[in-house]
Amino acid sequence: MWSMIATWPFSLQCVEKGEEILKGGGRALDAVERGIHLVETDPTVDCVGRGGYLNADGELALDAAMMDGDTLKMGVVACVRGFEHPVSIARAVMEKTKHSILVGQYAESFARRMGFQEAPPEYMITDHARLKYEAEKDKATKPSGHDTIGCVALDQAGSLCVATSTSGANLRLPGRVGDTPIIGSGFYVQSGVGGAAATGLGEDIMRTCCSFRVVDLMRRGLSAQDAVNEVVLTAHYTLKQCGLKPDCIALVCMDARGNTAGACNHKGFAYACAREGEAPHLVEVPPIIDKDEEQEG
Amino acid sequence: MWSMIATWPFSLQCVEKGEEILKGGGRALDAVERGIHLVETDPTVDCVGRGGYLNADGELALDAAMMDGDTLKMGVVACVRGFEHPVSIARAVMEKTKHSILVGQYAESFARRMGFQEAPPEYMITDHARLKYEAEKDKATKPSGHDTIGCVALDQAGSLCVATSTSGANLRLPGRVGDTPIIGSGFYVQSGVGGAAATGLGEDIMRTCCSFRVVDLMRRGLSAQDAVNEVVLTAHYTLKQCGLKPDCIALVCMDARGNTAGACNHKGFAYACAREGEAPHLVEVPPIIDKDEEQEG
Repeated sequence: MWSMIATWPFSLQCVEKGEEILKGGGRALDAVERGIHLVETDPTVDCVGRGGYLNADGELALDAAMMDGDTLKMGVVACVRGFEHPVSIARAVMEKTKHSILVGQYAESFARRMGFQEAPPEYMITDHARLKYEAEKDKATKPSGHDTIGCVALDQAGSLCVATSTSGANLRLPGRVGDTPIIGSGFYVQSGVGGAAATGLGEDIMRTCCSFRVVDLMRRGLSAQDAVNEVVLTAHYTLKQCGLKPDCIALVCMDARGNTAGACNHKGFAYACAREGEAPHLVEVPPIIDKDEEQEG
Repeated sequence: MWSMIATWPFSLQCVEKGEEILKGGGRALDAVERGIHLVETDPTVDCVGRGGYLNADGELALDAAMMDGDTLKMGVVACVRGFEHPVSIARAVMEKTKHSILVGQYAESFARRMGFQEAPPEYMITDHARLKYEAEKDKATKPSGHDTIGCVALDQAGSLCVATSTSGANLRLPGRVGDTPIIGSGFYVQSGVGGAAATGLGEDIMRTCCSFRVVDLMRRGLSAQDAVNEVVLTAHYTLKQCGLKPDCIALVCMDARGNTAGACNHKGFAYACAREGEAPHLVEVPPIIDKDEEQEG
């Protein structure tokens, strides 16, 4: 059995690439990395990699993570500028260092030392991103857009892997990092148990360590769907109990047999999926609770 | 009831300051912040703040976090140079922005904008730290020292709070961030449930989201001691199952009634504690399993 999921419809290309690799007996690590490459390069995806949203200084700084479910090792880069594939730098941190997380200019130096080719701003920053930045920068609008790619794969050897990649929201405070590169919040995976990844407002997702909880609940016997439903509901209602208004929270997950599920607290979420016997397709996820229709309590 | 704990004997001064504040009805947030200030300023504490270990470039870059158990809001700074009190910058991220995590040079700019006074290298970097750096930098020794301060407090109003602060290990890769500023791994807290903080090798602690698990187990009815024991054992044996040799892992925790506990997988760990009716004192923690005496399996 092999299986692969990734958040949002723009990730269909990601699971198509993953299918190629996993069907042929390739590794989950390679499937998520090479699948995410396509989304990082795609200039029309405005929350990931090239073409991603700019921060308040007009810079494109990217976050990415990879975690190997066999060893629980992970690699993370946060706030990296000028490289097309942050997910591959994250993989290099995981595989080539004794550390797990590198940030900012230091992660950029590491990438150069590892031989990653630099990508100039005129390639990385699209006209669309620049226009969106210019259009909103003088308005007091809140940062918009948080459609991270989070991708989980199971290979035929039974190894699970997860990776994430994002630019963060338009006009975010420079240096702001969300849940995407934070273990337990944006992602978690353990082979033989399951994997999960989150997308939405990172600040909300981190408060209840959503991705770790999904995997922990699957370990305790919940189905993928029951686990992810429970975590979205808990995250949502815990925020309300704390007097906060929940923003978007969505999660996808996969159990050790390749069963997949998603849950969210808002309309419009979908994920891409491919499994042995199932061609790449999109799965629309009905909100388990709708943050926009809820009565004020 | 009020209660406060902090990792390692050097934190006795931290809980003494906390006692002053909490006994007088002060807030848990203020107790942990002002307690940690003393340790950040103390030049003899070589893993926290001023006098902390240098990275491989000979720089002193600091990480800190604070989390409010009432709201589950948190503030984090990672890899910040030139400020004496990273824990207070973390608090400002939590209280003055909509974000949770700021990294590197951007966190430094934020600190300047918020009016934090810069501290020059000749104040922050002690002769001891410089000598340790010079002595080890040309040897192929592995990075040494990971004695983070992690501090949990309960105030008379029933609010729990946690904060952490560290320099990281001597000669670490520049830009490396460990578990200290990572929610769920280095710290977690929820008022009415409990709080936890970790110290040891961050890369090992993050793999099983230790601090979140301690609080989650207390939520499910385990005592503080049972929760922290279970988490250290799981972290340790999960690493072994993954084929890794566990390094130092130690945790402290507190439940919602102010009961405290610690657990570790190595000799020599102790924490400082003060509670209503108990003057500040040190608690030695016997290893629940000793990583250095374990037979190879």
